[in-house]
Amino acid sequence: MRIYDISVTVTPDLPVWPGDPAIILESRSSIAAGDDANVTGMQMGVHTGTHVDAPHHFVDDDPRTVEQMSLKTLTGRTYVLHLPDQVSVISAEILSQVEIPPRTRRLLFRTRNSSYWATEGGRFREDFVAIDASGAQYLVDRGVKLVGVDYLSVAPFDAGKPTHEILLKAGIILVEGLDLSHVDQGRYTLYCLPIKLGGVEGAPARAILIGP
Amino acid sequence: MRIYDISVTVTPDLPVWPGDPAIILESRSSIAAGDDANVTGMQMGVHTGTHVDAPHHFVDDDPRTVEQMSLKTLTGRTYVLHLPDQVSVISAEILSQVEIPPRTRRLLFRTRNSSYWATEGGRFREDFVAIDASGAQYLVDRGVKLVGVDYLSVAPFDAGKPTHEILLKAGIILVEGLDLSHVDQGRYTLYCLPIKLGGVEGAPARAILIGP
Repeated sequence: MRIYDISVTVTPDLPVWPGDPAIILESRSSIAAGDDANVTGMQMGVHTGTHVDAPHHFVDDDPRTVEQMSLKTLTGRTYVLHLPDQVSVISAEILSQVEIPPRTRRLLFRTRNSSYWATEGGRFREDFVAIDASGAQYLVDRGVKLVGVDYLSVAPFDAGKPTHEILLKAGIILVEGLDLSHVDQGRYTLYCLPIKLGGVEGAPARAILIGP
Repeated sequence: MRIYDISVTVTPDLPVWPGDPAIILESRSSIAAGDDANVTGMQMGVHTGTHVDAPHHFVDDDPRTVEQMSLKTLTGRTYVLHLPDQVSVISAEILSQVEIPPRTRRLLFRTRNSSYWATEGGRFREDFVAIDASGAQYLVDRGVKLVGVDYLSVAPFDAGKPTHEILLKAGIILVEGLDLSHVDQGRYTLYCLPIKLGGVEGAPARAILIGP
């Protein structure tokens, strides 16, 4: 079995959501300067790079934050669906035309977005492929419990609310900022482990797939 | 099989290494204030809470940083060794008296430290149990590839350098800040996934054990 790292590398060059804090990695002590050790401080939004969203991100009266997320949902059998490059919106219509194995509980979408991490030189693209409200409802109705996408939001750039609300109100875990460019369509075992921040609505995560 | 979360929850109350940056979790946008979503920014040292150390932390001319760490070493069969509360230093002498299964490649030490997370109310304790230079050399000689401890450093408070240097020069992955208070001695499968920070000497991680 092989391990596929499907996380993006976080450096100050990585694109962030417009308005989110910049990524800062700053030396706080350094051996070259006479300190005992090299120690770095980090500053960033919790929705930076590969990360998860908890319900409280878009549902203010839902107190569920990231440290309460189910590790049983964050780990386990997963299907990676490869959508052709011409798909620009993941709608109910698109989802009804593709084959998703029965009883899929964790579903990751590989789209043309995955290529942007390498080719866009840190530029944020507003025209990323995302799930619209009809697609979100379709996934809820299918009984999916975890949805992963390969850009910084599950929802289209100018319509964040409906998709997030539909998925998060259904208790679905959202994994955003994946890089699936080197992963074929098929079945894998996912380990998506967000850092255990207390009382906040999301967290950076490392995500890997184990598969053939 | 059960999943054991062996990570500590990161909030501003968590003790940090003296001199390290404070943990700040700060609201950057809020639904209550009229924004579309709740979004938090975070600031902390990369050696905060449950985290990993890469060689560059203490070995300045070793360029290996956290994004290069082997996922094959960070995941797999692991032994949790429970040391009695009277052990205050993990030395070669102590290690030669306990039973570590043959071919153990990943070894986590549960000590009295694990109780400090719950009982010390955020106070940093300088008298935590740690591995001295003789213990570090013993682990290198045994062929261990990953060492985990249940406080913020593998090394005693006033002697950070020898232990870190011996272990990191041997390419051993260090996992620090674990909470093993609810885990019995025995064999498990570890998934320790640090966030993929680029070019720095450590990173916060989520670590889980899968076992009986």
